[in-house]
Amino acid sequence: MREAASLTAVSLLALLPVLSILLGGVNVVHGVEELQDYYTYKTEWYENLVDHFGFAINSTFKQRYLINDTHWDSQHGGPIFLYAGNEGDSEAFAQNTGFMWDIAPEFNALIIFIEHRYYGKSLPFGKDSLKPDPKMNGYLTSEQALADYARFVTEFKSTRKGAKDSPVIVFGGSYGGMLAAWMRIKYPHIVNGAIAGSAPVAQFDTPCLNFGRIVTSDYSFYSKSCSGVISMSWAAIDQVGKDDKGLQRLQSLLKLCSKPKSVEPLKSFLTDVWTNVAMMNYPYPTEFLMPLPGNPVKYICRKMSPTTVPTDPVAILKYVYEGLNVYANYSGKAKCIDMGNADQIGADMWDYQSCTEMVMPFCYNNVDDMFEKSDWNFTTYAQGCQERWKVTPRPKMADIMYGSKKLKAASNIIFSNGLLDPWSSGGIMKSISDSVVSIIIPEGAHHLDLRGSNPNDPVSVIHARKLERSFIRKWIQGAQHEASRVYTTLWL
Amino acid sequence: MREAASLTAVSLLALLPVLSILLGGVNVVHGVEELQDYYTYKTEWYENLVDHFGFAINSTFKQRYLINDTHWDSQHGGPIFLYAGNEGDSEAFAQNTGFMWDIAPEFNALIIFIEHRYYGKSLPFGKDSLKPDPKMNGYLTSEQALADYARFVTEFKSTRKGAKDSPVIVFGGSYGGMLAAWMRIKYPHIVNGAIAGSAPVAQFDTPCLNFGRIVTSDYSFYSKSCSGVISMSWAAIDQVGKDDKGLQRLQSLLKLCSKPKSVEPLKSFLTDVWTNVAMMNYPYPTEFLMPLPGNPVKYICRKMSPTTVPTDPVAILKYVYEGLNVYANYSGKAKCIDMGNADQIGADMWDYQSCTEMVMPFCYNNVDDMFEKSDWNFTTYAQGCQERWKVTPRPKMADIMYGSKKLKAASNIIFSNGLLDPWSSGGIMKSISDSVVSIIIPEGAHHLDLRGSNPNDPVSVIHARKLERSFIRKWIQGAQHEASRVYTTLWL
Repeated sequence: MREAASLTAVSLLALLPVLSILLGGVNVVHGVEELQDYYTYKTEWYENLVDHFGFAINSTFKQRYLINDTHWDSQHGGPIFLYAGNEGDSEAFAQNTGFMWDIAPEFNALIIFIEHRYYGKSLPFGKDSLKPDPKMNGYLTSEQALADYARFVTEFKSTRKGAKDSPVIVFGGSYGGMLAAWMRIKYPHIVNGAIAGSAPVAQFDTPCLNFGRIVTSDYSFYSKSCSGVISMSWAAIDQVGKDDKGLQRLQSLLKLCSKPKSVEPLKSFLTDVWTNVAMMNYPYPTEFLMPLPGNPVKYICRKMSPTTVPTDPVAILKYVYEGLNVYANYSGKAKCIDMGNADQIGADMWDYQSCTEMVMPFCYNNVDDMFEKSDWNFTTYAQGCQERWKVTPRPKMADIMYGSKKLKAASNIIFSNGLLDPWSSGGIMKSISDSVVSIIIPEGAHHLDLRGSNPNDPVSVIHARKLERSFIRKWIQGAQHEASRVYTTLWL
Repeated sequence: MREAASLTAVSLLALLPVLSILLGGVNVVHGVEELQDYYTYKTEWYENLVDHFGFAINSTFKQRYLINDTHWDSQHGGPIFLYAGNEGDSEAFAQNTGFMWDIAPEFNALIIFIEHRYYGKSLPFGKDSLKPDPKMNGYLTSEQALADYARFVTEFKSTRKGAKDSPVIVFGGSYGGMLAAWMRIKYPHIVNGAIAGSAPVAQFDTPCLNFGRIVTSDYSFYSKSCSGVISMSWAAIDQVGKDDKGLQRLQSLLKLCSKPKSVEPLKSFLTDVWTNVAMMNYPYPTEFLMPLPGNPVKYICRKMSPTTVPTDPVAILKYVYEGLNVYANYSGKAKCIDMGNADQIGADMWDYQSCTEMVMPFCYNNVDDMFEKSDWNFTTYAQGCQERWKVTPRPKMADIMYGSKKLKAASNIIFSNGLLDPWSSGGIMKSISDSVVSIIIPEGAHHLDLRGSNPNDPVSVIHARKLERSFIRKWIQGAQHEASRVYTTLWL
């Protein structure tokens, strides 16, 4: 599935030229030079176990983590803010989770970004880790990643001066948000609370149509004709690209750098583009896969909203080009549109994860959504996984391990979701208890709340961050002194 | 360590000739014939994964479970009582956990005893599972066992008619009690509550002297000279058995079937004997490794409590023989005492578990306890593990995974402990919250509460079982209807 390619690709947005930090009413504006020093950290390494759950192998690997103690009060048990690394290079996360950096001074917190095994520089078997060989890849699971973090935190606290009594708050966005929530669920004796931004923990058993519907609604909200153009484009591509000459015509119409081998990769590319834009629908300009304007869906739709959606395929594709060109060439510097532009955060192994444990069903019907009709077929999906990775997916694994929405026994987790974000389809959208709380950010795209504050932030995300800070404070206080309440052992 | 041999060897006591079932004031007395039909079950098999946490291997194995639906209300979501199998044959547990059978009618419950991987007939790689080869043994961990149970319950509920909405209560004694508690901690979306009898979840970081002190106090409580004889016996054995002729003399004094090769195996055997008797210190006759009288410590001490403990080694060993002979030959039928009498429940792989994850430190000083002075030396311990199993123990693993006593975030667990039981040294002896409750049974030996009711039960265990039933009822009711309280999602 295309969406399975990477949950958080889009979370790794580059720095803004000017960042406004709004904290407790204090509005600090950093200039460009200051920003370059804002996300500073040391790189350290921890020798972790390849298999935490068994003894068939006894290998270890060097796991990278980035650490900043600028604001840490190591004299009085200042807290540890731990980012639960996602599917990508940890530096990208350190530089794109401004919320943690913004609030570290307020809490006198130590900041740590730990890198997820099999990503970035944390490769259990070096480059062999990435080859499609179950003996090499087989230890890439969320359970092993969480155990990495659990063991790391335990050892760190017992060896680092001043950290012994530090409460630990875990943060994460997208898949990292799932890990943050699950970390609190599985290791509550190690982490005191979790901020899980846009974490689709229930994506495994969410109706497969839901994701595409939300992407579509982002476009329809601007205009029905904008989503209408996209909706009609699949048939238009098929019609135009039915032979080699037609594929040439598609290249020319969409100004592609090379002629597509068939219509399939082109349609796949466009599905990714429209989805990525919806995920990245932030209210200010950002850069990641591509530089994008603020409110990019609106920006794109403005260019592809005819009064009446044409029926002529070539006319439709001319509108598609207008939108695509924003995504692929906002800078205006590209001479053609490169379909082969893969992710740049090193999320390659996410495809393996989605072929093993992270089996999230997606489907489209071109009626409730603007995408080409495509059923969810697990058999076909599993065949592809066998071909690419020599593994058989376990579609029930994550729900057995983590319980999807059945989180009544959990505590100290905030699940935040933006309604612009298609991943909210698998999010916790209702509070489950007093301490497993759902925060909805109506104007939010993919974990906007975890980004650094910005003058263009909607009020809702400012409130979300305030609430998150108040919960964090409560969790830290709860950890710092034992509950005064006395419970009675029952002597019989 | 000797005590590491098997936590629950002693829990598998054979049936009593007459069993009194005390339930809600109703006192039912079963005759011998009835009892033979009391523990009846069908044997079924479930195909489980060898590795739940990774994809390096994709093997499965047949896991045995025993099931009884005599009292199950499958029409109205009657609960499932699941026994979390320990280190041994599941049939032994089914026949020695009378509490579950006694209360099943009251709750209209389905009873399931699932067998722990690598024990009984649930061998992932057949007989190769037991060979000292990490590739074969490496999947024997508590985490894998819990995941076995989690996957089994999930699949069972989704496929067995009537089980879909059944609440699940998990029971276990000793290591099985640890598994029961950890099952609720790690998989609260799958099990609704846990009765953890004599579960030493904190044994990994308990001071190593504590266990032996409790064994000793059981003997000292009868008389100081009883524990005094044992305390002096180690030097006496060394003194007598210093050469081959002396070993022959030891054989003759203690009526051993064969001459010990050195004093070490004899001292090890005796340490096990005195410890086992303390664990099995039930108020009525039981049978397991050996037939034993009721209150066996008292019975034995009556035979080895001289007015003054003699200094002559031979005189001491004559008393030792008197006590040993009760344990080894209560029936009076044995012609000699067999030191090679290993456990009969198939707990062989516990030694492997204690050499990997279940690293419980034990030590003795012969001052605070009656055992031979013996330090806890992890290096030596680890060397032995390497020699026997080719593995390196991970002494911090269990605490990282499960948190020892740090269970504030847990819920719906009863930890019951008897004060006669040396394993209470690693138990939860204080309630941790309103729903993680400690029950102390002053007159209780090793998980007495999980045994069937008996006319000789002390009042404390009758009360303990009543309390446990009331918690079970509460957990089931909690599972059957969603909390009426409405939690507010925070829309911002």
